[in-house]
Amino acid sequence: MKISVNQSLLSKVLNVVSKAVSSRTTIPILKGILLKTVPEGLKLSASDLDISIEKTVPVTVLEEGSVVVPASLFTDIVKMLPNGEIEISCDPSMNVTIKCLTSEYSIVGQSPEEFPSIGEISAKETYEFDKNAFKEMISRTSFAASIDESKGIIVGILMELDEGAMNMVALDGFRMAVARSSVASLDRKRIIINARILSEINKILMDIPDADTVKLTLDEKRGVVDISDTKIIIRLLEGEFIRYRDILPKEHKVRVTANRKELVDAIERASVMARKGKNNLIVLSVADDRLTITSRSEEGTVREELFIQLEGDEIRIGFNAKFILDALKAVDDEEILLDMNTSVSPCLIRPVEGDAYEYLILPVRISAN
Amino acid sequence: MKISVNQSLLSKVLNVVSKAVSSRTTIPILKGILLKTVPEGLKLSASDLDISIEKTVPVTVLEEGSVVVPASLFTDIVKMLPNGEIEISCDPSMNVTIKCLTSEYSIVGQSPEEFPSIGEISAKETYEFDKNAFKEMISRTSFAASIDESKGIIVGILMELDEGAMNMVALDGFRMAVARSSVASLDRKRIIINARILSEINKILMDIPDADTVKLTLDEKRGVVDISDTKIIIRLLEGEFIRYRDILPKEHKVRVTANRKELVDAIERASVMARKGKNNLIVLSVADDRLTITSRSEEGTVREELFIQLEGDEIRIGFNAKFILDALKAVDDEEILLDMNTSVSPCLIRPVEGDAYEYLILPVRISAN
Repeated sequence: MKISVNQSLLSKVLNVVSKAVSSRTTIPILKGILLKTVPEGLKLSASDLDISIEKTVPVTVLEEGSVVVPASLFTDIVKMLPNGEIEISCDPSMNVTIKCLTSEYSIVGQSPEEFPSIGEISAKETYEFDKNAFKEMISRTSFAASIDESKGIIVGILMELDEGAMNMVALDGFRMAVARSSVASLDRKRIIINARILSEINKILMDIPDADTVKLTLDEKRGVVDISDTKIIIRLLEGEFIRYRDILPKEHKVRVTANRKELVDAIERASVMARKGKNNLIVLSVADDRLTITSRSEEGTVREELFIQLEGDEIRIGFNAKFILDALKAVDDEEILLDMNTSVSPCLIRPVEGDAYEYLILPVRISAN
Repeated sequence: MKISVNQSLLSKVLNVVSKAVSSRTTIPILKGILLKTVPEGLKLSASDLDISIEKTVPVTVLEEGSVVVPASLFTDIVKMLPNGEIEISCDPSMNVTIKCLTSEYSIVGQSPEEFPSIGEISAKETYEFDKNAFKEMISRTSFAASIDESKGIIVGILMELDEGAMNMVALDGFRMAVARSSVASLDRKRIIINARILSEINKILMDIPDADTVKLTLDEKRGVVDISDTKIIIRLLEGEFIRYRDILPKEHKVRVTANRKELVDAIERASVMARKGKNNLIVLSVADDRLTITSRSEEGTVREELFIQLEGDEIRIGFNAKFILDALKAVDDEEILLDMNTSVSPCLIRPVEGDAYEYLILPVRISAN
């Protein structure tokens, strides 16, 4: 293999592809990136078996071939080189030479035969989404999934495709996030994808600003996210997701309409004290047109007050401040609704109009005074 | 005590003073900041016994008094409050109330009597330095001091005041940094200050952009750095510093004149490989008008080449790349000199003209080929 490639282009592609390189793997070949000449240029592939990324960069191919290079060393070298043409060549013993102006590196590559086959999937169903809507739905739900891999399926986000709608749902036993958007889809489908991987995909999407559409192709076990010249292959999670619709409360005795930004600021100020105590506990008390937020720790107490609109009963209810903040910060509406029933039943945070999101948050039991 | 103070002003002052709060202390009072009303406003003090900082902020004093507040909680609270007037009051039981618009915090303070006395020093000698020159000398030397507190006096920087000159010297057994500047001083004086503390002072000086002059007052055991309305009290180190002049080589058989930036870039690129190996070793080979830098690790090899001017013999010599880079990055000259003798004797990095700095770096023994 012998190619000539622009340093800056190659560096950008490595930035994306190296996100699929596992830092903790015990399989040496997975610490590498596969370089392979293709008609479009040079295809770079990396995989940690849960997620694989393929991306092609235009290069001048002087001699066809392929080799696996150590990901971290190769990326470090390319990043350090000056912006200009880099010549990369590989001899039959898999010794890779990298030349650029007055620099010359020789590194030990591995045979491409040992690299796991990422392969093509037999395209059964294909869906197309607006990139920004797709990104927004991931950021509105992924934080609510469990990060404890021993908890099974709830490390995943349920993606529900239905006639004209896509829903994403994540939960961790203390709270649940539901995001909805309309989409031109034909087939009904429910898949579950690890939330960590969807967050990773969100980061990759940020590095590809020129694309508007995300294409998702599914077979039984895998999904392929195609965006511009980048292909991300993910393993789907298997299992039964919680019937989330059954958990969403249908009624409310208390409805608070609040300015979202004011509420975020007040809870963040109260959190300064709450996080010094146990459970990060804040207490919301609603009466008349006031919402009072209090918290106490061994080091002191805090009291915040803001104007709200109240429909229904007065209430006093405790929450983990983080769960409320996570939800309120994931959306950008000026006003939001807090729908509640009693101090021991869940609160639902939702938009004033529509159902683009719903955040269900379990309360923390508090003493009577 | 009862005062009213602007949030933004107080936040800036806390940013400086809290640098003297020890995070690891086992003495509870040292986790606090002393607030005390004085004629100029509110004086804030913090101390970890090695370094103490005092700074005064203009406030409206409604009632005189003093209290020690928990540094991290108090700083967090003030930072989170909106920019406006904050009312801070303290009752006789040392309960501190902080009010700002709709926020009200109550935190537990401590009696100021337990706070260590920072005190005034009987001004024996006073020196004045240009702030930028002072900062520059610290950044040109502090990185070369030992960070191993068990190594004794070499964790310190020697500050040598002489007629018309100030020198700073730091060393760690592998390299030595000497910085020199002219200053209008009268008394001869040699003091040693912990390099970590001088680096801390450098950070503080960056937060005080409006001052041009640093005043240093010394007694036997302590130094006071006065800058604008900030006072930093430091404990001087006791002991005998190495007679550094005896170590500086007086002659050289090889003199390389190199472009500093080109040399830095080439060594950084070679370091990508060097840091994968042992000792971070690079080998410099000088012949004719070329400097070749090579390095090897288990993962491969690298070779860099740049044009230089050579006076004297050819040489092949090994170094820890970090030591050369630290020195070259601490200065900003376009060209620098590398003075050497043999492959087992130290290299001296110095300016083409003058003696504003000298970096002595011990070589690493390398095999013959």
